Amino acid sequence: MNQISDETIKRLPNYLRYLEKLQKDGETYASSADIALYFKLNPVAVRKDLAAVSSCAGVPKKGFLIESLIDDIILYMGLNNNNQVVLVGAGKLGQALLGYKSFKKFGLEIIAAFDNNPLIVGKKIMGKPIFAMNKLEKVIEKMEIKIAIVCVPKESAQEVVDVLIKAGVKGIWNFAPTQLKVSDEIVIKQEDMAASLAILSQKINQKN
Amino acid sequence: MNQISDETIKRLPNYLRYLEKLQKDGETYASSADIALYFKLNPVAVRKDLAAVSSCAGVPKKGFLIESLIDDIILYMGLNNNNQVVLVGAGKLGQALLGYKSFKKFGLEIIAAFDNNPLIVGKKIMGKPIFAMNKLEKVIEKMEIKIAIVCVPKESAQEVVDVLIKAGVKGIWNFAPTQLKVSDEIVIKQEDMAASLAILSQKINQKN
Repeated sequence: MNQISDETIKRLPNYLRYLEKLQKDGETYASSADIALYFKLNPVAVRKDLAAVSSCAGVPKKGFLIESLIDDIILYMGLNNNNQVVLVGAGKLGQALLGYKSFKKFGLEIIAAFDNNPLIVGKKIMGKPIFAMNKLEKVIEKMEIKIAIVCVPKESAQEVVDVLIKAGVKGIWNFAPTQLKVSDEIVIKQEDMAASLAILSQKINQKN
Repeated sequence: MNQISDETIKRLPNYLRYLEKLQKDGETYASSADIALYFKLNPVAVRKDLAAVSSCAGVPKKGFLIESLIDDIILYMGLNNNNQVVLVGAGKLGQALLGYKSFKKFGLEIIAAFDNNPLIVGKKIMGKPIFAMNKLEKVIEKMEIKIAIVCVPKESAQEVVDVLIKAGVKGIWNFAPTQLKVSDEIVIKQEDMAASLAILSQKINQKN
């Protein structure tokens, strides 16, 4: 179950949402053909994806037991997760992420946030403690945190990321609209809100 | 320049960020080989991507003029954009998006937000007016809005989306963690914050 392709990993959350919806609608079984049809994918690819994360055997003419598939996907996505995550930059977006309940489903928890705004340092937001930025390195080292969410302005993103990596962080989810320089062993997931919206807009134009 | 692949469109924002960084570092030219190396892509693919959106001819041994490439990518991504966008659900995440400055770069503007919280309806947040939810259909029809950002709780997302589509919206950027049912001619971009973080976590595990 180890080296699953990026493409498969990206499809898993979609399958999960669809299966949860079917379950809520009262369904018990789902076939890979149903799932493939819904997402306009090749049924063989869907079957391979599911086989990679689940040992469920389908029942002929019925498909997979939805309940077991859901459990297996959640288990896979949460498996071996480094449960504890920190967030740097507790502005509006950062606070929205602090309050996001679904992280828990995949075994992830934001344990603390860091900011340099004296109005919020020392307080709790969405139940999470806000520390001053100068505590960043120490907390990460002490708690052995491997994942950080970066929601600071783009001007300070690189500096923050350098501190994070020096303290032992291996993966960064970056919301600052700037290209980070990191070494090859660090995993970066770059979010670019403006580009996402522009891509959506392009797709609408292509369709119409 | 019309039917560009999804993969190319997704890479454009990365190229753009990298080129802007080079420009800030004082560089004048960038070659497709440089770009390919930076993003670990095939140079031929990079050259094809750039040719699809830009008519710049590279200068032998120097590459492309960075300034022109930047202009062309921004122009392409903003080209024919339906400039005006509405946002539904002005909670913390919604408000963060309202304050997001980079949309403008691609010719996009959130013109209004909708919420049912009486404490914010009628006010302006980040300079954008907040209307009551019962104004949604009328404003979209009147302004001929084609794109909506949905940041409502998952329980009300489908209902909101049905209203949006009935009023003429063609593309939805959905932050509610739920699988929406829409017809084939509607473009949906689904954001799933928890899944994004889980995928990052998986990648770190695979690397270490």
